[in-house]
Amino acid sequence: MSPTPPLDELIAELPDGAVTTDPATMEGYRFDWARDTGAGMPLAVVRPLDADQVQTTVRWAHRHRVPVVPRGAGSGLSGGSSAVTGALTLSLDRMRAVEIDAATRVAVVEPGALNAEVKAAAAEHGLWYPPDPSSFEICSIGGNIATNAGGLCCVKYGVTTDYVLGLDVVLADGTLVTLGGRRIKDVAGLSLLKLFVGSEGTLGIVTRAILRLIPAQPVRATLVATFPTVKAAAEAVVEVGRTLRPSMMELMDRASVNAVEDYRPMGLDREAGAMLLAQSDAPGEACAVEIDTMERIFTAAGAVETFVTHDAEEGEMFAAARRAVFSAVEARGALMLEDVGVPVPILPVLLTGIAEIADRYDIEVPVVAHAGDGNTHPNIIYDPADADSHARASAAFVEIMELAISLGGTITGEHGVGRLKRAALPAQLGPEVMALTHTIKHALDPEGILNPGAAL
Amino acid sequence: MSPTPPLDELIAELPDGAVTTDPATMEGYRFDWARDTGAGMPLAVVRPLDADQVQTTVRWAHRHRVPVVPRGAGSGLSGGSSAVTGALTLSLDRMRAVEIDAATRVAVVEPGALNAEVKAAAAEHGLWYPPDPSSFEICSIGGNIATNAGGLCCVKYGVTTDYVLGLDVVLADGTLVTLGGRRIKDVAGLSLLKLFVGSEGTLGIVTRAILRLIPAQPVRATLVATFPTVKAAAEAVVEVGRTLRPSMMELMDRASVNAVEDYRPMGLDREAGAMLLAQSDAPGEACAVEIDTMERIFTAAGAVETFVTHDAEEGEMFAAARRAVFSAVEARGALMLEDVGVPVPILPVLLTGIAEIADRYDIEVPVVAHAGDGNTHPNIIYDPADADSHARASAAFVEIMELAISLGGTITGEHGVGRLKRAALPAQLGPEVMALTHTIKHALDPEGILNPGAAL
Repeated sequence: MSPTPPLDELIAELPDGAVTTDPATMEGYRFDWARDTGAGMPLAVVRPLDADQVQTTVRWAHRHRVPVVPRGAGSGLSGGSSAVTGALTLSLDRMRAVEIDAATRVAVVEPGALNAEVKAAAAEHGLWYPPDPSSFEICSIGGNIATNAGGLCCVKYGVTTDYVLGLDVVLADGTLVTLGGRRIKDVAGLSLLKLFVGSEGTLGIVTRAILRLIPAQPVRATLVATFPTVKAAAEAVVEVGRTLRPSMMELMDRASVNAVEDYRPMGLDREAGAMLLAQSDAPGEACAVEIDTMERIFTAAGAVETFVTHDAEEGEMFAAARRAVFSAVEARGALMLEDVGVPVPILPVLLTGIAEIADRYDIEVPVVAHAGDGNTHPNIIYDPADADSHARASAAFVEIMELAISLGGTITGEHGVGRLKRAALPAQLGPEVMALTHTIKHALDPEGILNPGAAL
Repeated sequence: MSPTPPLDELIAELPDGAVTTDPATMEGYRFDWARDTGAGMPLAVVRPLDADQVQTTVRWAHRHRVPVVPRGAGSGLSGGSSAVTGALTLSLDRMRAVEIDAATRVAVVEPGALNAEVKAAAAEHGLWYPPDPSSFEICSIGGNIATNAGGLCCVKYGVTTDYVLGLDVVLADGTLVTLGGRRIKDVAGLSLLKLFVGSEGTLGIVTRAILRLIPAQPVRATLVATFPTVKAAAEAVVEVGRTLRPSMMELMDRASVNAVEDYRPMGLDREAGAMLLAQSDAPGEACAVEIDTMERIFTAAGAVETFVTHDAEEGEMFAAARRAVFSAVEARGALMLEDVGVPVPILPVLLTGIAEIADRYDIEVPVVAHAGDGNTHPNIIYDPADADSHARASAAFVEIMELAISLGGTITGEHGVGRLKRAALPAQLGPEVMALTHTIKHALDPEGILNPGAAL
């Protein structure tokens, strides 16, 4: 990095207002939802209006070896966009155009557009953009692409990468490349497109995405069931997966249910060991068949109570309760957010192990899970004013990741590694894959200016 | 390359029979189905039995700078595994293990296993591996991964990369990396897994794949319709895509229909301008609704005749006729096989343009298409004994790719670039993406020993 990078040069190259150095304004760009205590103070926050301004910014940064931290809507949960002292924070929040090409069934989207905005624009044409993180109302498509975000419907419809047909990406030297396009199948050349999805801003900065849409698939029925234990619920999930393709299969443990009831009472059973929330979007009579079959499987697995509704609004109420878990647990203290995943049949072992770790460290760890995908979110609650509570939470955070790895799982299913899980990555990938990772990173960003300290 | 690589050293390191230098045997490993006239004579054919032997082979090749051409079942259509003089052809045809983990819903597969073998093994557990190239009975999973192969059901179920959860890959220096695993969602680290899918053996050699399976989705009904023109048929396809998700949407033009009728008569309408073949696997009554809706759309678009069958065997007969196109046109002369794709609404323009090119060069170009994906296979027929016929075919081959690129399309939707389309790749990707491609290739294979001359 230059001793004092000539920021005036960049300010002169960009229109008024694109570069901010006001500390009060910059404060709002330092953290994402992970509230990373290690976040620094940026040299400046740059808010470009188009790809050309992104290129100008990155060219300047490359010239002066100034690191660049790309940032979407700031709803990340792993500190992937935590500010770095002396770096530019490049916020894409003013690049929000969304255009729907209904005949081709694609959305052409700028990275700052919110997931919900893309969904809404598609819906006007009877189309649907499936990936649905719980935060879909406030998270950006750029962030979704950076983390290869998942969500609730992914159990049937897949994750972000499955819907990315094209990307414009500004590379570390400011070059813009256009990858893929408005065609559904394309195998010409290497799969560079997919390499950038999930790269957490370490390889390039997405300035435009072409996203695949499918005809709308309305949810037709919702099944809620309570179980005596998370183990019984998890076993029911595995059994369902052998024959059925529900459009949602979520699990909430007792602590999550109680957190939601405390936060937004809706009459959930506080005594249940776990609750499963399944939905079917199978068309016509097939929906009732799918729901009935799941209900039978749940009952056989030991469900205490089951409830079915074919009313869409009532079903959405339950889904909203599920999505409220993050806010509900956040209201109980500071959080360390896990995102560990395992092969689906190992889910009961993982959940039992997490409960054991919570007990051992005497901390509260409500768990919610995209159970059909084997992806769980243990939310570690601690008291930030209590050093011992923080130490126990930190130890549990590490142990839960170690447990997932030991079970053939992953430290992150959909949130990304960011800055908070970076130390755990080598244990999952091993030295050969880490070496390969660094080879790719070095080839694409030899000066290491793109999102240093994140992910790799 | 060493002047005379010490092949004895490699022979000594591998078990008896793994290395072949017998010219007659090697002859069978020189070509894939593209019958690339530029194919050379390998130094030796190596047929390893396990990943360890693949590593031994690649380490030797790396040490002595001997190029390696990986090869699956040899059913490729772009010359991706054409032998290179002085290189090893590394055939994976003896590594064919298939193991199904039904609870996790994955297949753990060696690269030489045939697509049909994976499908059959999955079916024993009520599960399904969707990707279905027309050649599924004879093509290998390793080749499918190398080309990111598509097929007929991809219009609803996606392509190979959507089903790859894990890969073991031997890199250019012989290092083995394990990427991904038996978990459905995993965003820890870069998407290296996806980078290897579709890389046509230029970045590494796959020795094991973990493939996602889904519960079987039996086809329930088939709709066949004839249209006066390919344009009318293509317009019907676009209209269907706005609201429906058929599990197959194939187009055959008049020349394809006639080629199949000549080859295997089954009473198709030789006078039709084009035929569409659609299937629905929607469950229950929804199937009839989907088929009826498609039939209405087809009729509104000008269909001359429509025929519906709910009989699975009869439906499969039509699908088999569609898959027979390759053999049927092959019986008419030598072939140059196109695989161009465009955004779906541009399909009528592409098909009209291909017919114009065929007329202008006075050659026969039967077209069959995965129409729902905008992916077409114009099959250019020529007489190899007639230099002028060959010259006209070659010119048409290039022009059809140029046409696709000019329409925002791709030179290859599912077959791969191989050696036959390599010259056309820069025109599609442009200099920046080509440079990025070479950066990645150089980082992973600095000596350029992996499949030189293919794809890049």
